[in-house]
Amino acid sequence: MQRHFHEELDHLKQTLLAMGALVEDQIRRAMRALTDRDDVLAKNVIDRDREVNTYDVEVDEKCVELLALHQPTAIDLRFITTAMKIVTDLERIGDQAVNIAQRALELNLEPQLKPYIDLPRMADQAQRMVKDSLDAFVARDTALARRVCADDAPVDALNHQIFRELLTFMMEDPKTIPRALRLILIARFLERVADHATNIAEMVIYLVDSKMVRHTLA
Amino acid sequence: MQRHFHEELDHLKQTLLAMGALVEDQIRRAMRALTDRDDVLAKNVIDRDREVNTYDVEVDEKCVELLALHQPTAIDLRFITTAMKIVTDLERIGDQAVNIAQRALELNLEPQLKPYIDLPRMADQAQRMVKDSLDAFVARDTALARRVCADDAPVDALNHQIFRELLTFMMEDPKTIPRALRLILIARFLERVADHATNIAEMVIYLVDSKMVRHTLA
Repeated sequence: MQRHFHEELDHLKQTLLAMGALVEDQIRRAMRALTDRDDVLAKNVIDRDREVNTYDVEVDEKCVELLALHQPTAIDLRFITTAMKIVTDLERIGDQAVNIAQRALELNLEPQLKPYIDLPRMADQAQRMVKDSLDAFVARDTALARRVCADDAPVDALNHQIFRELLTFMMEDPKTIPRALRLILIARFLERVADHATNIAEMVIYLVDSKMVRHTLA
Repeated sequence: MQRHFHEELDHLKQTLLAMGALVEDQIRRAMRALTDRDDVLAKNVIDRDREVNTYDVEVDEKCVELLALHQPTAIDLRFITTAMKIVTDLERIGDQAVNIAQRALELNLEPQLKPYIDLPRMADQAQRMVKDSLDAFVARDTALARRVCADDAPVDALNHQIFRELLTFMMEDPKTIPRALRLILIARFLERVADHATNIAEMVIYLVDSKMVRHTLA
């Protein structure tokens, strides 16, 4: 039974990593739909959100099943309850990819306002944070989790920089306002991706550091 | 043991409702800080976020403890895991109150752009959705939960209406852009509050409707 349980836990980790890779790829594709002005790719991202939602239900069901059948205690219990919270963050990262794709479709109806330099950089950083936060979770690596938390500040800084730059566009030429607003929104969606990754990293730190507390209780 | 467990569950429900009342009040105060241009109240909202975070940890610990000590199965198990997810949404609703309060402080540095009519209405609706979603959870009332989900569309519609109105301000007079942008953000923060309430309501529906499935499993 115990061996079987740990195989199930490993499988849960692999599923979470696969879901993480999917939402990362969704962000990547949504950003490519924006930079390449590719409507087909944008619609593809919106359609593929169903796969993200399927993972959400699958992980959730798996966690409840593991709790019901194996009644784990201590660190295993907390690992599973944390997985249930992480899957919600991953699902909402997927929602941000959809939000970006929708704004890309709208932006593709008009000429491009400016070359996109900081937005793709911001997206790269946010994606890396998502990957690192999940790697930290499965390896219970608090050093990596703390690095993810530290990475949030540069992403916030990029968001403010993008905001200020677009503000000058809008002030100088009101015709640019609708496009600039959409780009400001995309920057905020990416900031939220980074926030979700930070949430995951914080849960990892809490999971590992409260291990002793849990052990004394259960 | 069983009796004791159900008392503990009741206590958990009361704590969640108290946390819900707190974040609702945070949204209410943040909006009053905006409409009354009250810096002291805005700062008070920002400070009080610590209380929200304390509840977050408390509910989480309580849930893990209940799982560890009582190893509940079936509907009780799922109720507790759902509570752990709901508390995350409540904590993030609290974050939106802080976001609103911060924008209110910035807006109070300049003359008021326009009378606020739709924003307070949007806030009222979002707050009611939060309250209703939690009431639906503790009563396992799917009819109420479905009403919360239906209430999300009018809030989204108000958000778009506010966006369009502020867009015309910005296009007509670029000097209004910084203030209008902050108001657009506040509308989006309120939309996210409504989204969190909708998430909670969806979890309630899932919790209750999958009851039979869970019963056959555990």
